[in-house]
Amino acid sequence: MKIAIAQLNPKIGDLEYNARQIQEMAQLAVSKGAKLLLTPELSLCGYPPRDLLLNPNFITRSYHTLKQLCRTLPPSLAVMVGMPQINDHGTIEGEKPLFNSMALIEGMEVKQIFQKRLLPTYDVFDEDRYFASGKESDYFTLENVKIGVSICEDLWNQEEFWGKRQYEVNPIADLARLGVDLIVNLSASPYTVRKQEIREAMLSHSINIHRIPTIYVNQIGGNDDLIFDGYSVALNRQGEVICRLPGFTSSLEILDYSTGERDLLPSAIHPLCDSEDQEIYGALVLGLRDYARKCGFNKIVLGLSGGIDSALVATIAVSALGKNNVLGVLMPSPYSSQHSVGDALQLGQNLDIECRTLPIESLMSGYDRLLDPLFADTDFGVAEENIQSRIRGTILMAIANKFGYLLVSTGNKSEMAVGYCTLYGDMNGGLGVIADVPKMRVYSLCRWLNRETEIIPRNIIDKPPSAELKPGQLDQDSLPPYEILDDILHRVLYRHRSPQELIGEGFKPETVEQIFRLLKNAEFKRKQAPPGLKITDRAFGTGWRMPIASSW
Amino acid sequence: MKIAIAQLNPKIGDLEYNARQIQEMAQLAVSKGAKLLLTPELSLCGYPPRDLLLNPNFITRSYHTLKQLCRTLPPSLAVMVGMPQINDHGTIEGEKPLFNSMALIEGMEVKQIFQKRLLPTYDVFDEDRYFASGKESDYFTLENVKIGVSICEDLWNQEEFWGKRQYEVNPIADLARLGVDLIVNLSASPYTVRKQEIREAMLSHSINIHRIPTIYVNQIGGNDDLIFDGYSVALNRQGEVICRLPGFTSSLEILDYSTGERDLLPSAIHPLCDSEDQEIYGALVLGLRDYARKCGFNKIVLGLSGGIDSALVATIAVSALGKNNVLGVLMPSPYSSQHSVGDALQLGQNLDIECRTLPIESLMSGYDRLLDPLFADTDFGVAEENIQSRIRGTILMAIANKFGYLLVSTGNKSEMAVGYCTLYGDMNGGLGVIADVPKMRVYSLCRWLNRETEIIPRNIIDKPPSAELKPGQLDQDSLPPYEILDDILHRVLYRHRSPQELIGEGFKPETVEQIFRLLKNAEFKRKQAPPGLKITDRAFGTGWRMPIASSW
Repeated sequence: MKIAIAQLNPKIGDLEYNARQIQEMAQLAVSKGAKLLLTPELSLCGYPPRDLLLNPNFITRSYHTLKQLCRTLPPSLAVMVGMPQINDHGTIEGEKPLFNSMALIEGMEVKQIFQKRLLPTYDVFDEDRYFASGKESDYFTLENVKIGVSICEDLWNQEEFWGKRQYEVNPIADLARLGVDLIVNLSASPYTVRKQEIREAMLSHSINIHRIPTIYVNQIGGNDDLIFDGYSVALNRQGEVICRLPGFTSSLEILDYSTGERDLLPSAIHPLCDSEDQEIYGALVLGLRDYARKCGFNKIVLGLSGGIDSALVATIAVSALGKNNVLGVLMPSPYSSQHSVGDALQLGQNLDIECRTLPIESLMSGYDRLLDPLFADTDFGVAEENIQSRIRGTILMAIANKFGYLLVSTGNKSEMAVGYCTLYGDMNGGLGVIADVPKMRVYSLCRWLNRETEIIPRNIIDKPPSAELKPGQLDQDSLPPYEILDDILHRVLYRHRSPQELIGEGFKPETVEQIFRLLKNAEFKRKQAPPGLKITDRAFGTGWRMPIASSW
Repeated sequence: MKIAIAQLNPKIGDLEYNARQIQEMAQLAVSKGAKLLLTPELSLCGYPPRDLLLNPNFITRSYHTLKQLCRTLPPSLAVMVGMPQINDHGTIEGEKPLFNSMALIEGMEVKQIFQKRLLPTYDVFDEDRYFASGKESDYFTLENVKIGVSICEDLWNQEEFWGKRQYEVNPIADLARLGVDLIVNLSASPYTVRKQEIREAMLSHSINIHRIPTIYVNQIGGNDDLIFDGYSVALNRQGEVICRLPGFTSSLEILDYSTGERDLLPSAIHPLCDSEDQEIYGALVLGLRDYARKCGFNKIVLGLSGGIDSALVATIAVSALGKNNVLGVLMPSPYSSQHSVGDALQLGQNLDIECRTLPIESLMSGYDRLLDPLFADTDFGVAEENIQSRIRGTILMAIANKFGYLLVSTGNKSEMAVGYCTLYGDMNGGLGVIADVPKMRVYSLCRWLNRETEIIPRNIIDKPPSAELKPGQLDQDSLPPYEILDDILHRVLYRHRSPQELIGEGFKPETVEQIFRLLKNAEFKRKQAPPGLKITDRAFGTGWRMPIASSW
């Protein structure tokens, strides 16, 4: 029996567009002899639909679209479509009003509906906000094959694998008890670095227990801060990967389930990335491209400081939208070094993008003159430094507004953590492209980009980082070296280390104290930051919910 | 038996400060003869602690602080303290690792712990993210009185009152079955307009069913976007309010429970506000004062445009921090009308605050000159309008940075809804003071402020609203009249009306279409807005979670 996996890139909330995609994939699947088409979790509305789910019209419209979709699907093909389902007994039982469901369409009508049981409510996930848990796991039978259905998180409660139980029930064990021949897992699992290796290890671990071949279908595409990497995968009864779809791109793949062998047969296995840098770069390009495309932007504008962050983001922008759709703006001040301008222009040349130079000195003087009555007896300080950054932010937004370009911000995660960035200045933009990329990883990505030819000018990588907001300024005058900063941040963000523990681990007390203070004080800036593409398990985005006016 | 209600204003995460407050209240309660002191939900850490709860050190430290607090409490007083409790079986049972609990301290040690059972996970609430549900409701006995314990939401599942069941279990019914004499409800219930009337109606409804006198204790104070209004209240067996604490202020009150009558005896009843305007004004003053205070700011700076929004916010700022701690900045452009400057100065005089005038014309020309090579062949438009707003935003932030003032933003909810505001311009600020106040309510608040003497200059209220970003510009050139805009927004936000339904209700199709388009297109601005003080059930804040790159 041939089974098609549609690794789709939906537009959140665009029911008609998403239905059309499913319909096209169904035609293609039939033409290749498939009997069953699998699509990702909530494929009809895209994941995550967030508070669109609170709108009853949105739900009604989903039902309507599903009904229309049924009529256009080939009658010979069974299709699984993800959609929010009304929980009829919600108000009677005191449950949430919806289920996160998969509809099985066969012969142009909905034959069966399966409900997600484990609802992630942590990090970026808010599923308890919208959904009730499905009561039981179930299967359907196609050509005498019993196919057990699970939805995303349903597969992620492997107690032995994680070393702890995350939910009370285990839907996969329940499906095994039902004696299914095959398990499908319809997912929308966001990307983080090397997550696919964890997914495959977990899948393999699950199969080693239950001995049921499993097909895992993932969404791809960027949706605001979240990047879905795809890499849908199938494992046979031995727990071996026998098929893997490519990462970061839409795809349709046909699998063969042998009723004789009661197993999935070997198929195309697309490779994983060679390096974390390659993988992250692919994720960021997809995230930026989709944010621009899904918001309706064709062109990107960004400031080029001659520093490494903007160099990396410019390169990602070119990969995402093409060199003709990226405008770099140089805005040197009297504090900009000559090499900064030169490096930025060299980068622009390497990338073959349009660059404009708009020196900001006269505007700096303009603000100085205007503010002189108030600032006369004060020293040059953070206020004046920020003015420069905000002049640049204003110029970039003026260009973005005038020509309808997307301004992207270029701050990295290390800066965002300690607030080494100017709110309403260099933080300006619709998307923080590398907001979840620590500085040391920025270096590593740039070195990877230069592996064959020099894209990022060598001097940009080699020179000490500087915001160039006052004469001779270096990041390291205000911050610990990035090796140390990133190391501490990693321990704080991932392992919840306390200052005392960090000092015990060998870090200087004054450095530790400084980082904790900066981290807390930057909360108000992060609150107002644009969405930042998430590539780690702890990003400063929708999954970071810290109080601002607090004293911890 | 005398029972003390401590209506406390905690600092989020400041365990020592909050413990000290509880300890001081305990001394006071004992001196007044109380046997029991009640404090709000999570009184040790403040509500909502949000992701501080994910930090194991924070939990350990809470336990430590509770232990220390026990030692300092009067041995003769029973005290209920709210705190996150470790769920020992969480990783075994597959539950969340914490409970939202109340510890009963008696004789200087923890005698009993009660767990919250109903965990709100909607709007601004994320309790399923952190907490497991308590398995059962319980009581403690003090001087032969059986006191049933419920925590906030535990009381909010009155099926008959709401017309639907919100949760599977009803802790209050469970307490009634246990035969308790008195129910206490320890809460942290955020303010919305007229919410106290709903709370009291619901409490009364509950008592009419179960005939158990009930004490409801609420937190007060502003925590980021949330304002807790206090108004702790007690109702006797008849469901009559026999005690009410004041709104918007910390307070301790002593109640009498008569073991003979098995009821609460009449006590002080602080009145509710006379009008919604008075109530909202009180809430906003508290919200702003606490945000400033808890973030460490003593002074506020804001732009005074001569318009009604900044006039209202300036008045709130004076009420919150005092006239000596508010700086108004006028930044007229060539498009500013003479009356705008005059009105703003008159307001400053009425409020007796310092005002500075910094005309922005020269900076506008500076940006024009700089951008001329790019903008030469284009018409004056939104880009140029926004530059003016961003110049002002930059000036205000420079002053805030230089002197350590809190910049507050003055945009109202109607503007925030349709994006009639400039990101990185007039949206700048640490707090959106009236971000959840619709424009028509802004008028109503200003008229209320002027009920005795003219605080808001009459002309500010009477003149047609204008952003004054181009000659002769009026809000009504770009937007429907605010009466209609606010009406439509209310129907969309609260009743989820579709465009078709609104047209059916008599609104013009083109107006409806325009508002839906603007509402969706402003999502990226709202994402980057400062926290806005929440006064309605549907604010654009932590409880508004909409996708940006979407197509619904």
